[in-house]
Amino acid sequence: MRGVIMHAPGDVRVEEREDPTIEQPTDAIIRVEAACICGSDLWPYRGIEPVNGPTPMGHEYVGIVEQVGDEVTTVKVGDFVVGSFFASDNTCEICRAGYQSRCVHAVGMGSLGTQAELLRVPLADGTLVATPSAPTPEQIPGLLAASDVLGTGWFAAVAAEAGPGKTVAVVGDGAVGLLGILAAKQLGAERIIAMSRHADRQALARTFGATDVVEERGDAGVAKIKELTGGLGAHSVIEAVGTQESMMQAIRSTRPGGHVGYVGVSHDVELPGLELFFSGVHLHGGPAPVRRFLPELIGLIMHGAIDPGAVFDLTLPLEDADEGYRAMDERRAIKVLLTV
Amino acid sequence: MRGVIMHAPGDVRVEEREDPTIEQPTDAIIRVEAACICGSDLWPYRGIEPVNGPTPMGHEYVGIVEQVGDEVTTVKVGDFVVGSFFASDNTCEICRAGYQSRCVHAVGMGSLGTQAELLRVPLADGTLVATPSAPTPEQIPGLLAASDVLGTGWFAAVAAEAGPGKTVAVVGDGAVGLLGILAAKQLGAERIIAMSRHADRQALARTFGATDVVEERGDAGVAKIKELTGGLGAHSVIEAVGTQESMMQAIRSTRPGGHVGYVGVSHDVELPGLELFFSGVHLHGGPAPVRRFLPELIGLIMHGAIDPGAVFDLTLPLEDADEGYRAMDERRAIKVLLTV
Repeated sequence: MRGVIMHAPGDVRVEEREDPTIEQPTDAIIRVEAACICGSDLWPYRGIEPVNGPTPMGHEYVGIVEQVGDEVTTVKVGDFVVGSFFASDNTCEICRAGYQSRCVHAVGMGSLGTQAELLRVPLADGTLVATPSAPTPEQIPGLLAASDVLGTGWFAAVAAEAGPGKTVAVVGDGAVGLLGILAAKQLGAERIIAMSRHADRQALARTFGATDVVEERGDAGVAKIKELTGGLGAHSVIEAVGTQESMMQAIRSTRPGGHVGYVGVSHDVELPGLELFFSGVHLHGGPAPVRRFLPELIGLIMHGAIDPGAVFDLTLPLEDADEGYRAMDERRAIKVLLTV
Repeated sequence: MRGVIMHAPGDVRVEEREDPTIEQPTDAIIRVEAACICGSDLWPYRGIEPVNGPTPMGHEYVGIVEQVGDEVTTVKVGDFVVGSFFASDNTCEICRAGYQSRCVHAVGMGSLGTQAELLRVPLADGTLVATPSAPTPEQIPGLLAASDVLGTGWFAAVAAEAGPGKTVAVVGDGAVGLLGILAAKQLGAERIIAMSRHADRQALARTFGATDVVEERGDAGVAKIKELTGGLGAHSVIEAVGTQESMMQAIRSTRPGGHVGYVGVSHDVELPGLELFFSGVHLHGGPAPVRRFLPELIGLIMHGAIDPGAVFDLTLPLEDADEGYRAMDERRAIKVLLTV
C-alpha cells in the first residue's frame, strides 16, 4: 500500500509500505477514506522534535472496516468508522472515567501512521465508532475532524467549562482553536472571544460562533480580554498553542476561579508556581480523550448540526502529501485533508 | 492594646500598638478572643520572605464585636464572630462565584495583624459570620481553625473533588494537611492516605479519618500511592506544603483525569509543562476562599460534628507569642493557639 513517510525534517515522501495485517484478535483493518495533517506533525517537520529514521506519519483517520479480528464485536466489515488518535480499550477504570487517551492499554495511532491506504486499529471495539449510516461525501471532512481537531477543541471547551452565561476566550487560531470556538458555541457560551490576527482565520472564527476578535497578543492581549470582561478576565479560556507565551496569556486572561482548558502540546513551558497559585484558576488539559466525545460528535455531524469540516481549506490526494506539509508549514493552509 | 510585632527573622515581640478605630462605615472593631500562628508566618520568621521593618503579625481570629460602622447590618455589638484571612465584600461577581479570597475589594487581614487584643475588620458585612449562639470555651479552638487552616484544608479537599468512592492522598502533615484529611472524611471519601513520617501527626491524621499512612516521600512516596491504587494513582490529591518536591509528588500521585487541590503557598516552584500536559490531571488551588465555607463549617463545629480544634497542640497567652513562634519553627508544635 501507499503511505506517508517522514525521512527527516522537511523531507516527506509517499512510498510503498507493507500492508498491515491482523496481529491481535482485537484488531481491525480499515481502508482509510481520508486522513489529514496535524499541527503536531509540524513539530518534527520543522526539526523541533527529532526524526529518528524513516517514520510513518499521521494519527487522524476515517475509513471502512475491511477485516476484523476474532474478538471484535462492535464493528463489522463494511462499517464506516471514526477513531481517535489513541486506541483505547474503553473498559478500564481510566477509560470509564472518560480519559481514554490515558487508557491503561492506550496505543498512540501516530506509531502506526494513518496517512496511508490501510490501517491496523488495535482495540477496535473500544476505539472505533461506526456511523449510523454511510456518510455523504460532504460529511466525511467533518467526521475526519472529529478524529482529532474537533474532539480536541471540544475537550478544551469542556475542560474550560464553557457553557451558558460564560465568556470564553480562545488563545490560538489553528484548527483546534477554531473548533474550540465551535464547541464553546455548541455548549451554549454567551460570548466567545477569538484571539487571532489573520483575516481568514478571523472569518472562520466568526462562522464558528466567535462574537469578538482580539488581535493583540501577550500582555496586550490579556489587557484587552480584561477590558472586555469588566476587568475580571474570562470565565473560560481555551489554550490551543502550547508555548510559554500562550499558556501565560491563557492563565492571565482567566478570572480567579475561572477555568483554563489547555490542549496545545506544551513545548519548553515552565509554569511559575506563585503566579499560578495567586491566579486562582482551574487548569486542566492534556491529550484529549476524543473517544469520550465521538458518539455525540458523530451524531451532531450526521444531523448537520455542526460543520467542523469547514476547517479543511486544502484537499489533496495522498500522493501529494508533501505539498500538504509545505502548505501547513508556510501557513498557507489551516488544515489539510488527504483523500486516499 | 497589646499586639505581636515581627522586627526581623526570629525576632517576635509583644508590644503596645495603637487601638484600631472605625475608618470606614463598613468596618467593625472586634475584641479578639483567640488568634493563632500560621505556617505561613514562619516564612518571614525563617528569613525566606523579607521582613520590611516592624510588622504586625497574624491573620486568623475569632472575637466579639465591640463596635460597628454606620453601614454594617449583618453583625452587631456582642456577636461572637469568625472571619477569614481575607476581608471581602461577598457581593462582587468573584465573591458570588465563591472566590472571596480574590474579591475585587479584598483586604488581606495579615496587613492588619490579628495577633492583638483588638482588630479592625474591613467590609464587616461580607467578611464576618456570627455564630448562632455564644460558643463554649471548648468550641473556640474549632471556630478559630475555621478562620484559616480548616477553611484552607476544606477548600483543598473540595478543589481535589474528594467525595464518595474516592481515594484521597494528602501531601503535607501540617495543620492544613491534617484538616484536609478531616474535610475529605466529611465529604465522604472512601479511602484517605496521609503522607507523614511523624508519629504524633500520623495519630492525629488517623483521628481525623486517614485510613492509610505512607511514610515515603518524593518518587518513593509516589510509587507507594500507585501501589495502593492498582497502579493508577489517587483520584484526589491534596497538596499542603508548597515546594517543588511536594507539588510534583502531588501531581505524580494523581491518576489521569484526577484532581489536585493545592493550597501550599508555592515558593520557588516551576511546573514542567510537558509533564503536566501528559499527566492529564486537574489542577486547582490558591489562597482558599474560606468565606465560602464559613457558614457550613461553623454549623458543623457548633453541632459537634467535627472537632478541628484538636489541631492546636500548644496554647499560650498572647504575651508568650515568641515562644509559640519558636515551638512551631522547631516543629515542637503543629499549631499554636494564642489566648487574648
